[in-house]
Amino acid sequence: MSVLVVGSTALDSIKTPCRDNPRLLGGSASHAAVAASFFSPVKLVGVVGDDFPKRYVRLYRRHGIDLEGLQVSAGKTFHWAGEYEVNMNNRRTLATELGVFETFTPNLPASYRRAPFVLLANIAPALQHHVLDQMQRPRFVAADTMDLWLNIALGDLLKLLRRIDAFVLNDSEARQLTKEDNVIAGAKKIHRLGPRYVIVKKGEHGALLSSPSGMFISPAFPLDRVVDPTGAGDSFIGGLMGYLAGSRGGLDANLRRAMIYGSAVASFCCEGFGLARTTRITRAAIDQRVNQLERMVRLF
Amino acid sequence: MSVLVVGSTALDSIKTPCRDNPRLLGGSASHAAVAASFFSPVKLVGVVGDDFPKRYVRLYRRHGIDLEGLQVSAGKTFHWAGEYEVNMNNRRTLATELGVFETFTPNLPASYRRAPFVLLANIAPALQHHVLDQMQRPRFVAADTMDLWLNIALGDLLKLLRRIDAFVLNDSEARQLTKEDNVIAGAKKIHRLGPRYVIVKKGEHGALLSSPSGMFISPAFPLDRVVDPTGAGDSFIGGLMGYLAGSRGGLDANLRRAMIYGSAVASFCCEGFGLARTTRITRAAIDQRVNQLERMVRLF
Repeated sequence: MSVLVVGSTALDSIKTPCRDNPRLLGGSASHAAVAASFFSPVKLVGVVGDDFPKRYVRLYRRHGIDLEGLQVSAGKTFHWAGEYEVNMNNRRTLATELGVFETFTPNLPASYRRAPFVLLANIAPALQHHVLDQMQRPRFVAADTMDLWLNIALGDLLKLLRRIDAFVLNDSEARQLTKEDNVIAGAKKIHRLGPRYVIVKKGEHGALLSSPSGMFISPAFPLDRVVDPTGAGDSFIGGLMGYLAGSRGGLDANLRRAMIYGSAVASFCCEGFGLARTTRITRAAIDQRVNQLERMVRLF
Repeated sequence: MSVLVVGSTALDSIKTPCRDNPRLLGGSASHAAVAASFFSPVKLVGVVGDDFPKRYVRLYRRHGIDLEGLQVSAGKTFHWAGEYEVNMNNRRTLATELGVFETFTPNLPASYRRAPFVLLANIAPALQHHVLDQMQRPRFVAADTMDLWLNIALGDLLKLLRRIDAFVLNDSEARQLTKEDNVIAGAKKIHRLGPRYVIVKKGEHGALLSSPSGMFISPAFPLDRVVDPTGAGDSFIGGLMGYLAGSRGGLDANLRRAMIYGSAVASFCCEGFGLARTTRITRAAIDQRVNQLERMVRLF
């Protein structure tokens, strides 16, 4: 089954102590869509300017991503510039130029409205609502967010939580949203705000799934070198949703394995700048990493 | 089989925003010995002063801990006082009074020298060496440490690493020792210093075992409330060594399960001040938590 992915489609300029990488393909929807494309057909919703490089359109196409919902507007593509410190844990934003993203309205082509799986990747909650308003009975809706929306659009976000199946956020966002220092207690509070499934991302420490059938502790793939973690969280949830959409059987059982698949794709994302590494892997490479991860948590 | 545990035996005064807990039983050896006692016979090596409360001696005895190696010297028992902030992550030392610990030499009774499992809990590396010097061909030796010894006794510690099977340290200590920000890369470097098994503790994020048969990612038991994390790391390695000593079969296979048992005991430790909760549990309660943990990492 197909996954609809809405979020930002951007150009990322990423600086590290060793390298300067101008105008890489980035944005939450780009990372999530490419990650999901290894498992199921993807329909992308986003906006780019007329400066958007043709090679990035070809890259989406190579991954079989449906671009009917990708708007091209006169103006500049959303551009984010950031810098990482040596330890890769501290990120500093150097510039955010919204460009055509500022006036983006995610209107869906008719062919998108019956997609059974919907991933509302990180984007303003009002736009996430707008997408849901156009959907016809999706089977499973997951939404990601970021600290910015907790600060400036909390009301919209809280309303969104009552409309989705799964909410994905990182541990610091969970603390900010719930005022709970303890992440487990925080996840319980988030359930009361609406979502049946709460997924807390903890970066190199993996992720937690809190669901009606209990807690699942998902490991991160242990990497001994991280090149660029930008988009790892988007790759995680993209891989997770793609795997879910591509699997038969019960949701709860598939979700656990989907977390592991998301972790595997996210680990590849960290091994290159932007989408450089992710776009060069195969489904077989992902399966291999999933097998390795399974061996690393197995008790026997 | 039995486990010899050497480390500090102390009185801990632990302050939190809500409570003051003077002179609890504490110290690395106390936590580790009680944790190990649920699985196998324990021989304790340590020193206390003549002010050491009789009720704590009875507590050790109730756990079947062999106290022939517990020295009682004229003077005061090692006393540590610390304070936790609301979030339980930041600890501040208020006082450290070494007392009789200052001149402690861990001389072993003859009956201790053939213990097959040896846990060198956190104590000066010179004393850990002194214990090993007296042992007769132990089967498995694990050593814990702390940042203090990396700062003031690094040479002794590096020599120790060539004499032990397993080295246990937390993630910040691994970074300090290896100058590697990446914990996985750090663990690889530590193997080159001697130990076949490297265990990196990550608190609420669980622990990693790096071994000749690969990596094992062990979860922490998810607690929605932490009362006092003092001694959790000692309980983890104590439970791990106790479980190992009490199990038949291959070391590598048992070690994975031992990590889960260590995590379970450590989680109980965090639920009360000092040893208050740990001393009130049963083996059945530990088994139940291990089963819960297994279900939380299982993919099916």
